[in-house]
Amino acid sequence: MPSYDPRTVRGLTWHDAVPRFADGSDTPRAYLDRCLATIAEKEETVRAFVVFDAGLAREAADASTLRWKAGKPLSPIDGMPIGIKDLIETKDFPTQMGCAAYAGNFPRRDSAMIQALKQAGAIILGKTVTTELGGSEPGPTTNPWDTTRTPGGSSSGSAAAVAAGMVPAAIGTQVGGSIIRPAAFCGNFALKPTQGGIHRGERQGSSQSTAGIHANSYEDMWQVGIEIAKRAGGDPGALGLMGPDMPPQPVRPERLAVLETEGWTVMRDSERAAFETLVERIRALGVPVLRRADHPWIETLERLSAQGRAVTNVVVGFENRWGLLNLESTHPGGLSARATARLRASEAYTAEDYRAALAVREEMRAAMARVAPLVDALIAPASPGIAPLWDPKAPDAASNPRPTGDVACNAATSALGVPCVTLPVMAVDGMPFGAQLIGQVHQDARVTAMARWLFASL
Amino acid sequence: MPSYDPRTVRGLTWHDAVPRFADGSDTPRAYLDRCLATIAEKEETVRAFVVFDAGLAREAADASTLRWKAGKPLSPIDGMPIGIKDLIETKDFPTQMGCAAYAGNFPRRDSAMIQALKQAGAIILGKTVTTELGGSEPGPTTNPWDTTRTPGGSSSGSAAAVAAGMVPAAIGTQVGGSIIRPAAFCGNFALKPTQGGIHRGERQGSSQSTAGIHANSYEDMWQVGIEIAKRAGGDPGALGLMGPDMPPQPVRPERLAVLETEGWTVMRDSERAAFETLVERIRALGVPVLRRADHPWIETLERLSAQGRAVTNVVVGFENRWGLLNLESTHPGGLSARATARLRASEAYTAEDYRAALAVREEMRAAMARVAPLVDALIAPASPGIAPLWDPKAPDAASNPRPTGDVACNAATSALGVPCVTLPVMAVDGMPFGAQLIGQVHQDARVTAMARWLFASL
Repeated sequence: MPSYDPRTVRGLTWHDAVPRFADGSDTPRAYLDRCLATIAEKEETVRAFVVFDAGLAREAADASTLRWKAGKPLSPIDGMPIGIKDLIETKDFPTQMGCAAYAGNFPRRDSAMIQALKQAGAIILGKTVTTELGGSEPGPTTNPWDTTRTPGGSSSGSAAAVAAGMVPAAIGTQVGGSIIRPAAFCGNFALKPTQGGIHRGERQGSSQSTAGIHANSYEDMWQVGIEIAKRAGGDPGALGLMGPDMPPQPVRPERLAVLETEGWTVMRDSERAAFETLVERIRALGVPVLRRADHPWIETLERLSAQGRAVTNVVVGFENRWGLLNLESTHPGGLSARATARLRASEAYTAEDYRAALAVREEMRAAMARVAPLVDALIAPASPGIAPLWDPKAPDAASNPRPTGDVACNAATSALGVPCVTLPVMAVDGMPFGAQLIGQVHQDARVTAMARWLFASL
Repeated sequence: MPSYDPRTVRGLTWHDAVPRFADGSDTPRAYLDRCLATIAEKEETVRAFVVFDAGLAREAADASTLRWKAGKPLSPIDGMPIGIKDLIETKDFPTQMGCAAYAGNFPRRDSAMIQALKQAGAIILGKTVTTELGGSEPGPTTNPWDTTRTPGGSSSGSAAAVAAGMVPAAIGTQVGGSIIRPAAFCGNFALKPTQGGIHRGERQGSSQSTAGIHANSYEDMWQVGIEIAKRAGGDPGALGLMGPDMPPQPVRPERLAVLETEGWTVMRDSERAAFETLVERIRALGVPVLRRADHPWIETLERLSAQGRAVTNVVVGFENRWGLLNLESTHPGGLSARATARLRASEAYTAEDYRAALAVREEMRAAMARVAPLVDALIAPASPGIAPLWDPKAPDAASNPRPTGDVACNAATSALGVPCVTLPVMAVDGMPFGAQLIGQVHQDARVTAMARWLFASL
C-alpha cells in the first residue's frame, strides 16, 4: 500500500538550501552529490532518466560553488541540478524523444531555454524520459509512489525524477495535459504557463504545446520559470512568462469556481469525494467556490470545455501530421503502432476541420476570459483519478489507449491556453491525487500566488 | 539600357495554357520542356537555381499529362513547374539555405506546403537561390532585366526564375520584405499573405515570416496559394489563406490611401515622381486616394509605421539569436561576416526589448485595423527605388549593408502581418519599379481582386 500523505511529504527543494550556499555550510557540489546518491539508489526502479552525465554535472557544480563562495551567483538557481524532458534539444546530450526514429539523434544544439538555464548557472543534469514524441506510447518510467503505476505522461521522467527527489526541478511540456497530469500523479508542484510562456526551442510545430516546470515547491517552480523567461522569453511572437523576479507571495483568492471538464463524468466516486471535500475545505477558509449552476457564464465555459478533447485531437493531429509523415518516410518502422494508428486517423482531418477546431478553441478562450470578473481562478481535478496501474506485459497493454492516464481533465485547460498550477493537497488510496488551479492568460504569477496561499492554508 | 515596359511585357503564365491541356493541343510535359529550354538558355547568366532535376520533373510532367488526358487533373495547377526557395525543406533536394553551415544539408523531408503542392500535382522543379538564411548576404542570382543589378532578396532565385520565364510560379518567404521587394525589382506579381497564411514547414522560429508566391499573373499567384492552403492550411494556430477556389475576379476599390512608410524620405526623385504619377492615374480612374494629412488615423498609422524597421530588427534579431548561436557553435566559420555581425548586434537585445518591440508591433496592427472603415486598401512603393546595382567584386561590396536592396518600404508592411500584393505597373530607367497594395488581415482575396482591377485598368 502506497503511503503518500500531502500533510507530511517533504520533497527535495532548492530555495531553502540557498542560504547555506551563501554562508558556506553547504555547496552546490554537495547538493548535486546528494542528488546523484538518490539517483544511484532509486533510478533502477524509477527509470526517470534516458541519460545523465555525473561528470559534466560535477564540473558545473564546482564552478557554481566557486561563484557562491565569491558571493557572485549568476541567479538564485545557480547550481541547481535540472532534468530536461527528452523532447528538448540539449548540446551535451542526444534528443531521442522516446522514438525509435530518433535513436541516436544528437544535434548538439541548446534550445533557447537551455541557453537561458545555463546563463543562470543551472546544471543540465540529463534528459528525462518522455512518451514517444510526447504521445501515448509510454517509456519505462514508473511512479515513485507505486512502481506498478504510471508516473503519467508525456513528461514521465521529469515528474518522477522530481517526486523521487533526484532533482529539485525538471522541465516538461504539455500538449493535452503532459505537465499537469503527471505532476498530479506524482504529487509535484508544477506550472503549465500561459501558452507560449517559455520558449520551446526548435519544436514550434504545434500551436498547443507549452513548456513548464515540475518542482517540489512553488518557490523553485516559479524561480526556474522566471529565470528562463527573463533571458530567453517565450515562444516567438509571445510575450513570455511575466512576473516578479522572486516567487510571488501567497495571495488569498477572493472567489473561485469549479471547472468540471470532461473528466467529471468519468471520475471514480472516491476521487470525486476527495475533490468535493477539498472544495468544502476551501469554502471553510472563507473563499466562496461557485459551481456551474451558479452563473450562466460558467455554464457556457463548461459546455464549451466539453469539446476540449475533440478540439485537441483535431488541432494536434492536423499540426503533427506533416512532420510525422516525413518521419515515417525517412525512418520506416520508426514509429510505434500507437503513433502510427493516430497518424492514420489524423489523415482524415482536412484544413477546414482544422480551422473549425481553431474557431471552437477561440470560443472556449472567449468564454474563459468572460468569467474573469466573476472569479479569480478556476479549480478542477488534475486528472479523473489517481495514477492508473500500468503493466507493459499485461495482455491488454497493446490495446490500452491511455497507458499514461486520461486527458479528460486536461484537454480543455490545455486548449484554453491559460496558466495552470497543480495543488498537491489530496491523497486517495495512499497515492497523490491532484487539483489544478487555472488562471487567466498572463496571470501566471497571480495563479501561483493563490496556489501558494491555498497550499499553505490547507 | 534595360527595356522593361509594364505595358508590353508578357511573362510565362500557366492558367491560360490549361485549356490546351484539356483539348490535347498542349501538354504539361511540353510546357515543362519549354521551361527547361528557357533555363538552358538563361540560367548561366541569371543563376536562379541552386539545384534542379530535369529528369524527375519530366517523370512528374508525364504523369500529369496522363491525368489531363484522362480528364482527371488533381487541381488547376496539376503539372505546373514550381521553384522552391532554398529555405524550405524538400524531400528530393538538399536544403542549404545559402549558408555554408548548411552545405550538403539533406533532411529528405517535404515541408507541409511541398506535400500540398505534390497532392495538387504541381512539379517541384528545383530549389531557388536565397540570400544566406534569408538575411543580407546575397547569392549569385542576377536581375533578368539587368544583370548588373540585384534581383532583390531574400527570395532572389524565385523572383528571377519567374521574371526570366523559367517557371510560371515560385515560392518565396518574407521576414522584412523578401517577397515584395524582389518581386518589385523583377516586375513580378507576388502575394505575401496574411502572417501565417501558408504553412512554413519546419522553420517556425520567427513570428514575422510568411511564405508567399511569385508569378507572372494574379491568376497563377492566387491559384498556387489557395491550392496549398486548401490542403495544408497555414502555420500552426493560424487560419491560413482563405478565399475562393479560383482566382478572385477584379474588384474596383472604393477608396485607397497612400502609406508612405520609412521609404518615403530615402526615395530618389525619379521613383517618387513615378509613384505620384501612379496615384494620379488611379484618381483619374475615379478612385479617391487619401494621404496622411487627410485623416488623423492614417497619420497615426504612418507615425507608427516609421518604427517598422526598428521593430523588425529587434523581433527578428532576438528570435533568430538562439538558433544562430547554435549554428555558430556546431559549424565554426559557417556564417558569413554579415550574418555574424548581425548576430553579435542581436545579442544586445534583452527579453524586455523584445517584449517592447512586440508591443509596438501590436500598436501598429491596431492602427492598421482602425483605418479599415476609411479605405479598402493602402498603396505604397514596394521599394525606395529600382533594383540597385550590385557587383560582389566592387571594393565597397563587403561594407554594403543592403546588397539586395533597402527594406524601408517593407519592414512596416511585414510587421503589420497584413496581406500585400505587388502591382507591376511602373518603370524607371527601363527597370521595373513596383507598388504594393496592402489589405487588412485575412483579406488576401479582396486585395488580390483589387490589384487585378487596378492592373487591368491601368
